[in-house]
Amino acid sequence: MIDIQDRICDAVKGLVMEAAEAAKFVKDGDNVGTSGFTPCGYPKAVPLALADRGLAGEQLKINVWTGASVGPEMDSAMTNAGIVNRRLPYQTNKDMRNAINAGKVKYADIHLSHMAQMVRYGFMANRKGVDVAIVEACKIIDLGEGKVGIVPTTSMGNSSSYVQGADKVIVEVNVTQPVALEGMHDSYVPLDPPCRQPIPITAPEDRIGTPYIPCEIAKIVAVVPSDITDKVRPLGEIDDEAKAMGSNLVNFLKNEVKEGRLPKNLLPLQSGVGSVANAVINGLVNSDFEDLTVYTEVIQDGMFDLIDVGKLRVASGTSLSPSPECLKKFYENVEKYKKYIILRPQEISNSPEVARRIGVIAMNTAIEVDIYGNVNSTHTTGTKLMNGVGGSGDFARNGFLTVFFTNSLAKKGAISSVVPFCSHIDHATLDVDVIVSERGVADLRGLSPKEKAPIIIDQIANPKYQPWLYDYFKRACEACGNSQTPHILSEAFDCYERLAKTGTMEIKD
Amino acid sequence: MIDIQDRICDAVKGLVMEAAEAAKFVKDGDNVGTSGFTPCGYPKAVPLALADRGLAGEQLKINVWTGASVGPEMDSAMTNAGIVNRRLPYQTNKDMRNAINAGKVKYADIHLSHMAQMVRYGFMANRKGVDVAIVEACKIIDLGEGKVGIVPTTSMGNSSSYVQGADKVIVEVNVTQPVALEGMHDSYVPLDPPCRQPIPITAPEDRIGTPYIPCEIAKIVAVVPSDITDKVRPLGEIDDEAKAMGSNLVNFLKNEVKEGRLPKNLLPLQSGVGSVANAVINGLVNSDFEDLTVYTEVIQDGMFDLIDVGKLRVASGTSLSPSPECLKKFYENVEKYKKYIILRPQEISNSPEVARRIGVIAMNTAIEVDIYGNVNSTHTTGTKLMNGVGGSGDFARNGFLTVFFTNSLAKKGAISSVVPFCSHIDHATLDVDVIVSERGVADLRGLSPKEKAPIIIDQIANPKYQPWLYDYFKRACEACGNSQTPHILSEAFDCYERLAKTGTMEIKD
Repeated sequence: MIDIQDRICDAVKGLVMEAAEAAKFVKDGDNVGTSGFTPCGYPKAVPLALADRGLAGEQLKINVWTGASVGPEMDSAMTNAGIVNRRLPYQTNKDMRNAINAGKVKYADIHLSHMAQMVRYGFMANRKGVDVAIVEACKIIDLGEGKVGIVPTTSMGNSSSYVQGADKVIVEVNVTQPVALEGMHDSYVPLDPPCRQPIPITAPEDRIGTPYIPCEIAKIVAVVPSDITDKVRPLGEIDDEAKAMGSNLVNFLKNEVKEGRLPKNLLPLQSGVGSVANAVINGLVNSDFEDLTVYTEVIQDGMFDLIDVGKLRVASGTSLSPSPECLKKFYENVEKYKKYIILRPQEISNSPEVARRIGVIAMNTAIEVDIYGNVNSTHTTGTKLMNGVGGSGDFARNGFLTVFFTNSLAKKGAISSVVPFCSHIDHATLDVDVIVSERGVADLRGLSPKEKAPIIIDQIANPKYQPWLYDYFKRACEACGNSQTPHILSEAFDCYERLAKTGTMEIKD
Repeated sequence: MIDIQDRICDAVKGLVMEAAEAAKFVKDGDNVGTSGFTPCGYPKAVPLALADRGLAGEQLKINVWTGASVGPEMDSAMTNAGIVNRRLPYQTNKDMRNAINAGKVKYADIHLSHMAQMVRYGFMANRKGVDVAIVEACKIIDLGEGKVGIVPTTSMGNSSSYVQGADKVIVEVNVTQPVALEGMHDSYVPLDPPCRQPIPITAPEDRIGTPYIPCEIAKIVAVVPSDITDKVRPLGEIDDEAKAMGSNLVNFLKNEVKEGRLPKNLLPLQSGVGSVANAVINGLVNSDFEDLTVYTEVIQDGMFDLIDVGKLRVASGTSLSPSPECLKKFYENVEKYKKYIILRPQEISNSPEVARRIGVIAMNTAIEVDIYGNVNSTHTTGTKLMNGVGGSGDFARNGFLTVFFTNSLAKKGAISSVVPFCSHIDHATLDVDVIVSERGVADLRGLSPKEKAPIIIDQIANPKYQPWLYDYFKRACEACGNSQTPHILSEAFDCYERLAKTGTMEIKD
């Protein structure tokens, strides 16, 4: 067995067991709440053991609640073993996505800041709370009075709330995670209405909780050694289009500072996950901005680069999700980076209360936008789930300034990212201030829908689709007598039919 | 001239003038921020004088920013005089609505809690703040040190922020508003990021500001006497369908209490404006619930009834908008009702931070809902603005429990309020917990889209449209291979075409 004796306190040493043994505490029909946010800090050994039970033919269907996306040891293994009934609140895994879009796994989209409180409120589909919490830790410390402190690893997610609410707790102590991570976390679970108090954060660097998740020893049923690494993903190369988006954003922000609408060091930055988001942060690395702060979900490569060049004061998030190379850099310099990083529960990292108070600049990626500025973040052609809404709604609604990014084209030009009417709407136009593509910036603040349309078509849409979009808009205005939001509903979705039939949204003569 | 000498302090007595004189302080192109929320507490004399300037042929186009809807002395008179360029952030006036839907007045929908901060941030279309604030008061008191306190009347709206930011302030002192209103208001303007602090409200009865709007005397350019009354609107009779909705809600809430998901006295109630909302509150008047609290925008008849029967501890809102009879009752018993009522700026009454902290039960009305639980609150057939999103988004996203109400039918049955795909989406399904119609309750918490559809069709849709909706859903599931959100986009909007061509959404053989 992997040796974890120096990572755990005496009080739990009698609870150490192999994953297969620990997995037996999970029963058919259970709600299982796990650590993990992006493929970081999720439990690996016990989920694999649960999958084994399914593969062995046992009747086992569980509801899997995480922080957000997790790695293949959970979503691939458990999906392919057929043991997942419901999956919440976000995923990015191909096997899980396919299972959801085939109706084999039930998925309900949810704002990431809402998940923990919805569980506490008893609002989940089976109206039960967490039966078993499974969380990854780098160590377990003794707090006295029958309590231990679980020190998380590379993410916080919903672990604090799941552990607090669970009947049974399984801790995976992962020896690939440095013990030096201790001190980076800030665990805090708010009370529920009518007793809730203000979240006392007024700046991204404020710490309000404990560097460990407190847990009664009596609830811990197993401590499982693990040496399976986080399956972090490489980031795509920053291509020319991503560079152009980053540069468009930087120029826009510079002008906002010049006009006095933003302070010189901006306001706390929130940035979505993925290559485009990373490219945008990269644009800031190469800018003149200094003394920046980050209040976001996921701390990615670009933010480490900002630390390296001395431009970042603090990065607050709920997860560290760097590329493999960047994770290596982090592991080798934990003590250095730890000074700049705070990992909070996603209920706090994504808190609308805090986002609005400190005034985050919210930057997220859209799948498509429509000519009036509505945003689809979740579904391709309106029907298939891509990943989930994630934290985009938490931040977009509450940010000081809300920016969505999209390339003007998708699928090598077969798809226009600007359409007449989004095939699915996650963010209504009133939650969207600015849209940025590789082509330009559409600043929609204060404008009516009929003023927004020409700007979006001009600045965001690709020239190859502009004539079609202008034509639709013009005819819609005529057909509706210039009403508030002109549409010709009978042809608003034609482009999807064209795409299905001809393989492209292009109108061919 | 109407005598207001006993309502104003000596420091402003030299500024008293007729409305026509005061109106001259407003220039072509100005941003004019006024008091008023629902047709209550809005300025009347000066807007009428501004309309007169337009009717006299003067070149005058102004941007009119209010709290929410106002009375005909503003929206009808100013629209018909052709002097309104932009109108924000909400309206319910027929003349204004027609002008907006003919492209004559520019309207940008906005969450009511966002308006004041967007103005302070400099995010309005012309990137300017308030040039002239025009606010109705019942009295003006001396605060010393060059400042006076403007005591508002029947609403707070955005007055505190507009007065704070304006270059020039005009106060209409309205003698039809009792001076006894003093003490009912709680004026508070938060700082802006990065300096903003927590809003220190933890219960609906908490007062955090001053009972007057502070203002430097140097900014006041005119004090205008007025005796024009608030044009409050009668409420429709509570019909059988509204009664059924109220009863459905009460039964649902009773069960939530029984299951331990809500305390016995519920949580603070938020209720939209209008007859259905009033009927729902009326359902509570006749229930066994006691010690209720209200944290809402608009305090309507039903809440006065709750006070009368001793079931309401406190009603916090931003506006008093009772029917004419109820307003009379209030005016005759101001001292009694005042003990139960707090009027706050809409930035506070609708604050996401507070709504989530204290856990409001958010109850608002939908124009239509779709089979997956998305909600249209603003547009008829997707193109024409009805009123605006108002505060529905502030509360729906942040409430403890979010309920939308809709009759199953509209236009005498020609329109189904449940459709395959909403023609406009203001609230994505993930912000909707429960839908209530006269037919039943659709409890959507924790469910996937494919689980929501049959419940919505069964509980909310009218039997005459159910076969059509079930058929669409079934065929969509087949066409999409049971993907996350099944649709046949090419026919998702067919019902609107049918309605336009045949006068009904019904499919006739």
